[in-house]
Amino acid sequence: MANVTLKLPGHQYDIRVEPGALLQMGSWVRAVAPHAQAALIADAAIEVTHGSKALASLRAAGYDVVTATMPSGEEHKTLDTARQLYEPLLQRRLDRKAPIIALGGGVTGDTVGFVAATYLRGVPFIQCPTTLLAMVDASVGGKVGVDVPQGKNLIGAFHQPHLVAIDTETLTTLPPRELRCGLAECVKHGVIRDEALFEWIGNKLQNILQLDAHTLVELVAWNVRIKANVVMADEKESGERAHLNFGHTFGHAIESTTGYSAFHHGEAISLGMVAAARLAVSLNRCAATVAQRIESRLQAIGLPTGAANLPPTSTLMDAMFADKKVAGGKLRLVLPTRMGAVDLVSDAPADAIVAAWDSLHA
Amino acid sequence: MANVTLKLPGHQYDIRVEPGALLQMGSWVRAVAPHAQAALIADAAIEVTHGSKALASLRAAGYDVVTATMPSGEEHKTLDTARQLYEPLLQRRLDRKAPIIALGGGVTGDTVGFVAATYLRGVPFIQCPTTLLAMVDASVGGKVGVDVPQGKNLIGAFHQPHLVAIDTETLTTLPPRELRCGLAECVKHGVIRDEALFEWIGNKLQNILQLDAHTLVELVAWNVRIKANVVMADEKESGERAHLNFGHTFGHAIESTTGYSAFHHGEAISLGMVAAARLAVSLNRCAATVAQRIESRLQAIGLPTGAANLPPTSTLMDAMFADKKVAGGKLRLVLPTRMGAVDLVSDAPADAIVAAWDSLHA
Repeated sequence: MANVTLKLPGHQYDIRVEPGALLQMGSWVRAVAPHAQAALIADAAIEVTHGSKALASLRAAGYDVVTATMPSGEEHKTLDTARQLYEPLLQRRLDRKAPIIALGGGVTGDTVGFVAATYLRGVPFIQCPTTLLAMVDASVGGKVGVDVPQGKNLIGAFHQPHLVAIDTETLTTLPPRELRCGLAECVKHGVIRDEALFEWIGNKLQNILQLDAHTLVELVAWNVRIKANVVMADEKESGERAHLNFGHTFGHAIESTTGYSAFHHGEAISLGMVAAARLAVSLNRCAATVAQRIESRLQAIGLPTGAANLPPTSTLMDAMFADKKVAGGKLRLVLPTRMGAVDLVSDAPADAIVAAWDSLHA
Repeated sequence: MANVTLKLPGHQYDIRVEPGALLQMGSWVRAVAPHAQAALIADAAIEVTHGSKALASLRAAGYDVVTATMPSGEEHKTLDTARQLYEPLLQRRLDRKAPIIALGGGVTGDTVGFVAATYLRGVPFIQCPTTLLAMVDASVGGKVGVDVPQGKNLIGAFHQPHLVAIDTETLTTLPPRELRCGLAECVKHGVIRDEALFEWIGNKLQNILQLDAHTLVELVAWNVRIKANVVMADEKESGERAHLNFGHTFGHAIESTTGYSAFHHGEAISLGMVAAARLAVSLNRCAATVAQRIESRLQAIGLPTGAANLPPTSTLMDAMFADKKVAGGKLRLVLPTRMGAVDLVSDAPADAIVAAWDSLHA
């Protein structure tokens, strides 16, 4: 088992990584949020496979547990879902000391986290992520929220959890495509902060894909540590937390122009990282070998580095610059300088960005 | 003009009290939240009387202003209203540095504050309260939120404003009944913290009711100072901030059992303070003169100290103890010990509470 402590001004919490964590989660929750009642809100599909373990563990720890589920899928990450989830909490009169536990992937964690942030002006929140993507990214750092028709995560809050309990055994029921998508964010962490992680992913790839228990704990803990360090340095994303957006400005444009369906998030980010790395090379910001190493690592994982079904570059450029207005000021791109380090770049010429997009059209 | 600075860990803001403040508000906002865009969201009725001053002031300070209104009345303090208010912000792509200014009473401040707390995970928020109640209570302290059918303020956040700009001239268009309701909270501040304020309200009552400009500034600033001191000592209401609930546990039961219509908030709180003070006397927690002084002050203002149309005591007791479950643990009452000081009391016998309720049935 591994433990990472995330320390912020006025609040700190542990991120515990362990096979079988769901079986022990109840006593861990009691240690940080002791109370008579708790709420367990699970992704409906995950509830079937892993809900009973979490529920039994909470009951064994003495909680009177209010349970609820939410449907799977990004299309349910909405204010309407949040409103439906308030209902059982209100009916059962959960008070503001009762912890709310989210069990599922990033959609569940973000939506339930928004509920926990806003129910009675904020109650203790526990993340139990069940996808690799949620384990190494969404569950750490306190960003919660829902989507609106105009875009993703536009309504939300910063609400740090009291605990993140990661049961790596849940990865054994994760579809292989989703495991690969989670690895895209792991590669990202290597590129922006840690060449050793980047190399380790290459060396251990077969153990990872074969779901070796020890390797999965090490993979998750290593990535959580990197994410936690970035969040500790910049909780509200006024500075270096933006480095986590490496590949995401390109990736979000791919997702929004393809209706969030043709490419899963990790696949769009894989393409986005390739484009960003090639752009950095074309601007003489890093060596060509950096982009080549990123591409070959992504290919080895089984992630796309080019795609025939991408929208035209002009469509992608428009989406990218529309996103820019929401974010305010200039289009800020995260570009590698060497393996393990990135810079924020606000002056990339449009023709170079166009060329990076063009290069993805396989 | 008066200024009160509220200092919290990591954030501080000014509460500026001045006749004509709306005319200068734009430059004050620019000093704390400089940006190209801003949003002005007003109560629809207030927009007619005071909106143009606020808008002109923001434009003169260089803001491109997105405007919106929300309907008047507690029944519109809902998630649906919040959702409608997100729309113009999303359409105009307000980014996360753009301040949102709330212009209106407590309903407007709470609802718009919730929007500001959750739009893009939180943007700068400016309160411009236009009722005495909102000036001395709701606009100070960062509590924002909306109602749900199960109760008031059950969905919300703590989101401290960047500035509270109080234009006491707006009180000249406030219905007299609402001015009296605001004075109920001023009396409360005197009872819980400041005998001198309690006496001053009595001495200056005619000047207040005649809307003397100098007296109104002093009244608002004095009360804001008390509220700010309580919030600074206990931002998230883990301790003494609960003292602000003096009269409110009784008052909320009156409001919820009468459908929030027969009594305005300040009237329910007036009755609640009378009941709490009489209870304290019956428990030998304070001298009978304390209750008598509170009652005569409320009567002089024109606030109720008894009512023929109250629900039966048994109905009020049920509502009070249902509210208790939401708040968790025991029924905690705020009871005076002497004029200017209160205690939290968790062991008041039910029969004494019943007697306090009975005494209100005029």
